[in-house]
Amino acid sequence: MRFRNCGHHFEWLRSGPLNRITDVEGLGVGHYTLVEDFPRILRTGVTAIRIEDVIRKPLMAASSVFNGYGKSMGLIQIDELGTLESHIYLTNTLSIGAVHQAAIKIALDEYPDLTSHNAIVMECNDSYLNDITALAVSESMAVEAYKNAARDFELGSVGAGTGMVCFDMKGGIGSASRVGVIDGREYTVGSLVLSNFGSRQDLRIEGFDLKQGESLNLAGGSLIMIVATDIPLLPHHLKRVARHMSLAIGILGAPGYHGSGDISLAFSTARTFDFDTLRIGDSSSNMNLIFRMAVQATTEAILDSMFCSKTMSGLKGTVKSIHETISRK
Amino acid sequence: MRFRNCGHHFEWLRSGPLNRITDVEGLGVGHYTLVEDFPRILRTGVTAIRIEDVIRKPLMAASSVFNGYGKSMGLIQIDELGTLESHIYLTNTLSIGAVHQAAIKIALDEYPDLTSHNAIVMECNDSYLNDITALAVSESMAVEAYKNAARDFELGSVGAGTGMVCFDMKGGIGSASRVGVIDGREYTVGSLVLSNFGSRQDLRIEGFDLKQGESLNLAGGSLIMIVATDIPLLPHHLKRVARHMSLAIGILGAPGYHGSGDISLAFSTARTFDFDTLRIGDSSSNMNLIFRMAVQATTEAILDSMFCSKTMSGLKGTVKSIHETISRK
Amino acid sequence: MRFRNCGHHFEWLRSGPLNRITDVEGLGVGHYTLVEDFPRILRTGVTAIRIEDVIRKPLMAASSVFNGYGKSMGLIQIDELGTLESHIYLTNTLSIGAVHQAAIKIALDEYPDLTSHNAIVMECNDSYLNDITALAVSESMAVEAYKNAARDFELGSVGAGTGMVCFDMKGGIGSASRVGVIDGREYTVGSLVLSNFGSRQDLRIEGFDLKQGESLNLAGGSLIMIVATDIPLLPHHLKRVARHMSLAIGILGAPGYHGSGDISLAFSTARTFDFDTLRIGDSSSNMNLIFRMAVQATTEAILDSMFCSKTMSGLKGTVKSIHETISRK
Amino acid sequence: MRFRNCGHHFEWLRSGPLNRITDVEGLGVGHYTLVEDFPRILRTGVTAIRIEDVIRKPLMAASSVFNGYGKSMGLIQIDELGTLESHIYLTNTLSIGAVHQAAIKIALDEYPDLTSHNAIVMECNDSYLNDITALAVSESMAVEAYKNAARDFELGSVGAGTGMVCFDMKGGIGSASRVGVIDGREYTVGSLVLSNFGSRQDLRIEGFDLKQGESLNLAGGSLIMIVATDIPLLPHHLKRVARHMSLAIGILGAPGYHGSGDISLAFSTARTFDFDTLRIGDSSSNMNLIFRMAVQATTEAILDSMFCSKTMSGLKGTVKSIHETISRK
Repeated sequence: MRFRNCGHHFEWLRSGPLNRITDVEGLGVGHYTLVEDFPRILRTGVTAIRIEDVIRKPLMAASSVFNGYGKSMGLIQIDELGTLESHIYLTNTLSIGAVHQAAIKIALDEYPDLTSHNAIVMECNDSYLNDITALAVSESMAVEAYKNAARDFELGSVGAGTGMVCFDMKGGIGSASRVGVIDGREYTVGSLVLSNFGSRQDLRIEGFDLKQGESLNLAGGSLIMIVATDIPLLPHHLKRVARHMSLAIGILGAPGYHGSGDISLAFSTARTFDFDTLRIGDSSSNMNLIFRMAVQATTEAILDSMFCSKTMSGLKGTVKSIHETISRK
Repeated sequence: MRFRNCGHHFEWLRSGPLNRITDVEGLGVGHYTLVEDFPRILRTGVTAIRIEDVIRKPLMAASSVFNGYGKSMGLIQIDELGTLESHIYLTNTLSIGAVHQAAIKIALDEYPDLTSHNAIVMECNDSYLNDITALAVSESMAVEAYKNAARDFELGSVGAGTGMVCFDMKGGIGSASRVGVIDGREYTVGSLVLSNFGSRQDLRIEGFDLKQGESLNLAGGSLIMIVATDIPLLPHHLKRVARHMSLAIGILGAPGYHGSGDISLAFSTARTFDFDTLRIGDSSSNMNLIFRMAVQATTEAILDSMFCSKTMSGLKGTVKSIHETISRK
Repeated sequence: MRFRNCGHHFEWLRSGPLNRITDVEGLGVGHYTLVEDFPRILRTGVTAIRIEDVIRKPLMAASSVFNGYGKSMGLIQIDELGTLESHIYLTNTLSIGAVHQAAIKIALDEYPDLTSHNAIVMECNDSYLNDITALAVSESMAVEAYKNAARDFELGSVGAGTGMVCFDMKGGIGSASRVGVIDGREYTVGSLVLSNFGSRQDLRIEGFDLKQGESLNLAGGSLIMIVATDIPLLPHHLKRVARHMSLAIGILGAPGYHGSGDISLAFSTARTFDFDTLRIGDSSSNMNLIFRMAVQATTEAILDSMFCSKTMSGLKGTVKSIHETISRK
Repeated sequence: MRFRNCGHHFEWLRSGPLNRITDVEGLGVGHYTLVEDFPRILRTGVTAIRIEDVIRKPLMAASSVFNGYGKSMGLIQIDELGTLESHIYLTNTLSIGAVHQAAIKIALDEYPDLTSHNAIVMECNDSYLNDITALAVSESMAVEAYKNAARDFELGSVGAGTGMVCFDMKGGIGSASRVGVIDGREYTVGSLVLSNFGSRQDLRIEGFDLKQGESLNLAGGSLIMIVATDIPLLPHHLKRVARHMSLAIGILGAPGYHGSGDISLAFSTARTFDFDTLRIGDSSSNMNLIFRMAVQATTEAILDSMFCSKTMSGLKGTVKSIHETISRK
């Protein structure tokens, strides 16, 4: 059950066939989900975005930090070189080291001659539902997530999203896409988020009423936003797209939060540029369209991270699904 | 007629007595409005935010650029030193030089020993309604705006806001404030905006319907956001506040635009710190409150820049007021 | 008399025929020099870098702020869009408004349809030798500097450099260039600086001894560094070049200073890119060469701003030339 | 044998008793050194900077990236919050995940209630001498390094510095300190570097001649620079100090390099501020002194990373010590 099937009409640009980040050619997403109740209460996991050939042939990329209470790995080099040379891994805050080691081994396995690798590992803190100090995520789980990567993939409380909480409701993995025409050619922008931020009092969804409910008073949070596109954008264009993605937070009514790592990463799978395509990102009408595609897809992805999740109990209590919390106006 | 008097109930934090930036002690705002039809069609002006004693005793400050298609002056030094040493002047894009000269003379007039001064001049482009190439704003108009500064001041199409367009409707100067309690003391956050951005198709205001209407297809735009507070925040805290203010763009439904200079400046009028107040900005609950105050005040200020403006005709056509465009649901 | 004619052998890369920024095709530099003793003591001026066709066809560009105690105009938009759409003007700190107005008029004169223009005006503070509060630089002087632009131009205490002080000695305008071969094609990197920074105690020039001498204890300062090249570099590559240029400060022995606006701007005159040239900036050996060219040219330009200047008296005293201060080891 | 004992007189500010970063109260440094020849050739290790009470009571801090070809962990949150909440760990590029896991366990061991921790792990690539793909650094080695932390500690090819190469000579761990008087009180600035950058052709050390020698043509590199001080500086002041530290690269003659992660981190151990100490960082003479202390200490630390190292053979060849490469003029 995705948000757009819940009956409300949004004036949105057209989405791709899967309405997922994998509508962009060359991408696959895989999860490893860890749910155990004994000996410790575990609600966590790993999500991997596999990107065809990215290690051997880096892609143009940029990142942006809206609110930097986060521990993502690998962004310094992306900002320096404007290139992404790694698959992208998502997990919980205290497991980034383990997943990084898996990422290095996956890369070395494919390319034994590598002596350096800028692995991208991003995170949110799932310690409300998950006993995070168990450090339960292992390297092999990350390898499993990577191997599971496919164009079609589950949304909601799976993989890294398993234990996440969004606007005091159950969050997790969301994804969406938009299709647009530039210079007569059809292009796709796809978004994937790991949602774990927000206070219920701030949430606004056009056409829906939120029931009263108590806040979980989670100090922390985070929102990881990944946008992929086949539009040939240069790093400084992608930087702008990454920066604009944070507006999705506002579109849902939130003022941003102290304890949140709201971090976005944008990359282009285009590998061929000529002087004309090089200039796509310099046009006002193109960029306005691209901003709209990226922000809409990210907003819908956040909504889907909630609408595709069910109520879950865990370490410190129960987090309700949005379906139990919201009603159509 | 301000937005909050239009009948819709928003769940907002309490505002100060004037619901303006001048609810923060020590500030005054003044306008010089230039409307002429002959020999050239002029719809422009200057707005000055006068800050008590700021030249002699700089205040802690920070700026943030959400989308940098803008020409604001003076932000480099604010980011280096974390201090504001100037009143703040707003005008049209091509008149920043003239206004800067006025700012220098105003500073030298008060402090003849100055040999350097980091004057802050910010701008939007009013060339749809105003014949901007007339370069009609003079130094003396900026001096006049500065002299007009008072705690109570007009909103809407006045001063620098005279010729501005927002979401394809008439925009201009808006302002609002919020009051909150931190560690048992009441503090104020005030916002002032110069609004000149947005496409009608994107605008969403809870509880209102927008009538169909054509876009003016303005390539450019901009949104200048100033936040003042008496909360003793350090420059790195103010940087965060300035960054969060851009969420007001999303809260109103917009994805951000290529041709827009969306730039925010935040400063604190506090001149006394001790170890406790120094740490106000390190607390999650404090900062979440402050973000809410700043983003709400900025959002309401943008709305008021429209709700306080009337339909205006100018160089390239007529821009309708929001009152002719919107209706209560 | 330039530095390299003073007898010391530096192991430098080859310079272009003029050893100036104008070795890069399409550039001219012009000065307006203002030296008067009555009624006020004036030692100031304007320097303009005219760039062929830049207003109609913007060039890829980036800026970097090493120490931001400066008031340069126009850098926000360059960082957002990665493009330079203006000639570059240099003057004293309090005259940037007047020069900006001239820049706008020069642009409107050529392109009357313009309704926006991101003019670049950069500055240093010459208030030791120049009575800066006289605000003596007029728009027409800036126009004159622009009209004087030519491939060959004077160095030292001319134009904006007239009243500047560097390492407690006479500074001003310096320029140099380097030629290098990339992928079998010869390219040029040219640098122009406006030097006004540094304490004599820090200066180190290999092969020279500095005589003892008192510091002028100038609180302020600044170093404006412009690098032009015909190498087809993208904005994110140029950003790196701009950032590396600050190492020239260290190469001369200085730790950087609080009151200094050390700001660099790098742009490429290349207007044609294909997939191969697009990747020039991704190669380690290319970028190392380009960093060397830019840093060497900037270092030599700073040295020449001193070696091409004579002792000058002005408002607050006399500033000796480096020739009176230094001796060969 | 440290650089300053090699006979050349530098006009340096006074250093602390150990001339190490540990001259700043509350710090200890420990190493774990891994040198093995079978089954794989290992020349690597871990260095830990232990900071008293830092996890429970975060310190004010800032980082700066001069050239971002690096993979350091934890800097995003430092830049957002202006605080350091972790000890600092250094290791090789591919081992940051393992060391991060150790850092998390060390923190959880001390504070079992932690559910989040921003561990700082920084790195250089030692793959010329070390068989880096062996991934030989284990968690327990990092724990060992942490436990070894003491005020006195070894310099040169130890810990994380074991396999590093600097200016084509043997590099590694260096450290130095400076003492200065501000407002009548004596303060210390201490620096620790992990040096692994530079091409021999660029190196200049006043008073020394370099013998001819071939370059190792290392594509990669990096320079990690840590500065600690007891001066009560705020995060925006520390950001400036961190940025200025990169000038040490220029002072040694280098133009900066493409493949180098030149990253600096500055923190203050001061935990008490009043209005006066809060303003220490706003004074020009104070900041100029602090910049000089930080840049000098960092420059000497880089020199000592070489002067305290011996010739070493490893995976791809032999790297000579600076003592075999240099002679007094």
